[in-house]
Amino acid sequence: MATAGYDDNNIFAKILRGEIPSVRVYEDEHTVAFMDVMPQAPGHVLVIPRSGSRNLLDADPAVLSRTIPVVQKVANAVKEAFEADGVFIAQFNEPAAGQTVFHLHFHIIPRHEGVGLKPHSGQMEDGAVLKAHADKIRAALAET
Amino acid sequence: MATAGYDDNNIFAKILRGEIPSVRVYEDEHTVAFMDVMPQAPGHVLVIPRSGSRNLLDADPAVLSRTIPVVQKVANAVKEAFEADGVFIAQFNEPAAGQTVFHLHFHIIPRHEGVGLKPHSGQMEDGAVLKAHADKIRAALAET
Repeated sequence: MATAGYDDNNIFAKILRGEIPSVRVYEDEHTVAFMDVMPQAPGHVLVIPRSGSRNLLDADPAVLSRTIPVVQKVANAVKEAFEADGVFIAQFNEPAAGQTVFHLHFHIIPRHEGVGLKPHSGQMEDGAVLKAHADKIRAALAET
Repeated sequence: MATAGYDDNNIFAKILRGEIPSVRVYEDEHTVAFMDVMPQAPGHVLVIPRSGSRNLLDADPAVLSRTIPVVQKVANAVKEAFEADGVFIAQFNEPAAGQTVFHLHFHIIPRHEGVGLKPHSGQMEDGAVLKAHADKIRAALAET
């Protein structure tokens, strides 16, 4: 079950280097959070470490330990910003598990009672909508 | 969006106290990993901190930082033990997101190409099957 290693031409590596635009809601020395361009629900955010690994399986444990509190911080902000009833956190490792970009990332998806999710890697959202959603999340982050 | 707090009568708290049996694959001072009794795929494991929180949203960030390297360790063992093509990690917060037990837990689910998942909180697995699966995972953990 050998898997390929890390390729820094993946799109999240390009986002980290600023070669591809992203709508960011949070960043610090180690971590960046930005809107998923194909959201499964409004407010769907991705949290990634700046440090490169293919996914969780080959990550430096210290990187994971620094990343997960950011996942928590953003999850709480997303819940507040979208008045969500719950938050689904998903992390896919390898294509068989649904991984499509090979840089470790955590999905943070607000959930509302009785509202289903759109498919993973589904339809591209309008940039203005993503920016408006990011503004709400940044406002919620600023309160904490 | 206020939510209820932590109730230590939840079944995972009872498992931690040994009041309810579990098929454990790993434990340390801070963390316990055991077989999900309603697996979405063979080898479905739950990782929980001993420290009580309702879910990720209200957890102590230091607890999250200690728990996620164990998630990684178990995920790699599960992948090896079941010769999986990938691993899905899921963490549900609040009922709207699918949470049914209100003690923070991470789902670790091996994935194979072309094989779908059984439903969350579906059918109870036979105890002997869970024990056999746990043996494979413990063997993989012992190799690392």
